Amino acid sequence: MIIVKGGVTAAKGFLANGVKAGIKPSGRKDLALLYSEVPAVAAGAFTTNRCKASPVKISRMNLNGKTHQAIIVNSGNANCANGKQGDTDAVEMARCAADFLNLDKRMVLVASTGIIGVKLPVNKIVRAMPKLLAGLGRDKAPDFAETIMTTDTRKKEFVVKVRMGSSVVTIGGACKGVGMLHPEMKTVKHATMLAFISTDASISKKMLEDALDEAMRDSFNMVSVDGDMSTNDSCFIMANGLAGNKRISAKEGDYGKFTAALKFMASEMAKMLAADGEGATKLIEIEVKGAKTADDARRVARKISTSNLLKCAIFGMDPNWGRIVASAGSSGVEFNIDRMDVYIGPVKALSNGAIAAAFNREKVRKFLKGKNVNITVDLKSGKSSARAWTCDFSKEYVAINSEYST
Amino acid sequence: MIIVKGGVTAAKGFLANGVKAGIKPSGRKDLALLYSEVPAVAAGAFTTNRCKASPVKISRMNLNGKTHQAIIVNSGNANCANGKQGDTDAVEMARCAADFLNLDKRMVLVASTGIIGVKLPVNKIVRAMPKLLAGLGRDKAPDFAETIMTTDTRKKEFVVKVRMGSSVVTIGGACKGVGMLHPEMKTVKHATMLAFISTDASISKKMLEDALDEAMRDSFNMVSVDGDMSTNDSCFIMANGLAGNKRISAKEGDYGKFTAALKFMASEMAKMLAADGEGATKLIEIEVKGAKTADDARRVARKISTSNLLKCAIFGMDPNWGRIVASAGSSGVEFNIDRMDVYIGPVKALSNGAIAAAFNREKVRKFLKGKNVNITVDLKSGKSSARAWTCDFSKEYVAINSEYST
Repeated sequence: MIIVKGGVTAAKGFLANGVKAGIKPSGRKDLALLYSEVPAVAAGAFTTNRCKASPVKISRMNLNGKTHQAIIVNSGNANCANGKQGDTDAVEMARCAADFLNLDKRMVLVASTGIIGVKLPVNKIVRAMPKLLAGLGRDKAPDFAETIMTTDTRKKEFVVKVRMGSSVVTIGGACKGVGMLHPEMKTVKHATMLAFISTDASISKKMLEDALDEAMRDSFNMVSVDGDMSTNDSCFIMANGLAGNKRISAKEGDYGKFTAALKFMASEMAKMLAADGEGATKLIEIEVKGAKTADDARRVARKISTSNLLKCAIFGMDPNWGRIVASAGSSGVEFNIDRMDVYIGPVKALSNGAIAAAFNREKVRKFLKGKNVNITVDLKSGKSSARAWTCDFSKEYVAINSEYST
Repeated sequence: MIIVKGGVTAAKGFLANGVKAGIKPSGRKDLALLYSEVPAVAAGAFTTNRCKASPVKISRMNLNGKTHQAIIVNSGNANCANGKQGDTDAVEMARCAADFLNLDKRMVLVASTGIIGVKLPVNKIVRAMPKLLAGLGRDKAPDFAETIMTTDTRKKEFVVKVRMGSSVVTIGGACKGVGMLHPEMKTVKHATMLAFISTDASISKKMLEDALDEAMRDSFNMVSVDGDMSTNDSCFIMANGLAGNKRISAKEGDYGKFTAALKFMASEMAKMLAADGEGATKLIEIEVKGAKTADDARRVARKISTSNLLKCAIFGMDPNWGRIVASAGSSGVEFNIDRMDVYIGPVKALSNGAIAAAFNREKVRKFLKGKNVNITVDLKSGKSSARAWTCDFSKEYVAINSEYST
């Protein structure tokens, strides 16, 4: 597996674009399209929030179809809590793209991100459609990545290439989302983070769904900025088969390789989201080891990643490891604190439930000055592990989120 | 039921005190005692955190005894994550108070609050004991309330009187806790908030436990400042029978009256905690109505009360009601968003899942300038309701918690 530069158009046969449709009050780019030149199988994972945005409902429905060829996305408006009108507007957004692309409307998926409770200006989307399509190109991946941004400060793209037999499969993607970020997505059998992944792998729809599910569990579903689950979280993947690899149609052969590559690139994208979290100055990685089950490890890591107190402490470079202990203990997972070890970076803080003999506050404080903070919790009660990502909690987060809708 | 001034010594036969023992680096009062002149029945509710502080373990154990007469409390040190030494120190703290008071050591309960992972300076507690006892008095309730404070900016006390037959029963209390505040306490059949309640009611230990359990569920367990559950949360109640009311020994007669009074005073204390939440500028009350069950109502209200995004919005007086919808939807409770109504203060924001026709941003903005913000969510799918309390999320919260241990 190798990492290369690029984004959603790195895989063969994918084109993209992003333009200004006038949805964002700032006047920035806000309408994007990802298009596969040939029909692709697609899978999606969506927020488990009870209040689902209209595009989530429509995309879930459309994913019942066999093949798909395009995803249309707007930023600046979540199209959520807009009642029946919202659903109508999401359908219209997909239909309009389908018309211009000469596709069945169910072959188009749709996503939105932005403010909740404001009617989607569909007329602006319709008007911008010719410009959006005219500019489609392989060189427009950066425009796509830029367009989907809301409070993000930078584009987020990632590409891996992996050899399968005599073919090389490419998986590329772009994502956004640095606030209202605590996705718990399920694939369509069942984030506002949005992720769009395109691959030229040849793979069945069923296997693509399973691979996405596996990859999601240890990547996007383990990132949190503020603990607030969105109504719009969506992760899409389209696979158009143009790499010419032997078709993956069962959990054997190259399925493992494909899933591992997908999980790796999704994890790297998840870290990008956390690192750019609203107001963030540091990326925090929490690794939980020695858990009885992988699910236990995920729950403890995830719980710690949502501790406001810990995130404030790390913002202040304060070696207050007690907050890690308190948070782990509130995860609902059973473990014995008297066996628990905690490390902040290279420094052991807790040893068998009490302060480590070698704990050195100054050493931790120095470590916490860096941009990347890793915390390790060893429960010493099993062999499972998991990682979660978050960012520190700064005054800037409060500033950003006390003025968002105004 | 009437509300009167006072604190933990308002009920007959209770004495208290609070002194400086040198545990807090600030040099403020940090060692307090609540004492009943006659043996009392007692009940306690404690954190469900897997990592329990030593005083929680010792108090839970001691509550197996039939009667109790004293509670000793220190602030400035949580005595948590101190291994076996922590347990030994908590036992020693109780034993020392028992010796001075000439009580069996199991008749003394113990509580701690402050930093995690620092050894409790028991020698300082032993040295301060004579002074603590010498000063015990009915007039020292304010000293008690002041001593238990950590990042609290003001004392929290509340007293109600309720007539039972020809007797008047008094229930008084003090509490603290404005950060790491998201208690989920269970009574000893099973917060760092601490609450100490004293009453002269005559009531059996079993009924006292049940009453505390009922009261807790809708009061302290519905308050959250930051979503971080403490290792030390504890709520104690002692009932010494000196009011001379007909003994409450079953769920009949005055049991309901007593429980209602307890629930009322505990709710008022819970509101005091939220209003003084770290960095808080506003008290937020969230009422959820029309839920299928009381538990559903509590879960939705509680979830909304932990939304960082909503709390930031209210700090910024931003009428961003979409965040209420998103948060309610992530509670895990099933409801139909298309029937959901949301009010911010007197202004209807959401009506049947879409923006209310009469919604007026400026009106909401004006309302949000007040100190008290009430939010109502009507799920219109049942008859149950619940209330939760929190505070807004300010830059000051981050400032306080990025510098706590340093």
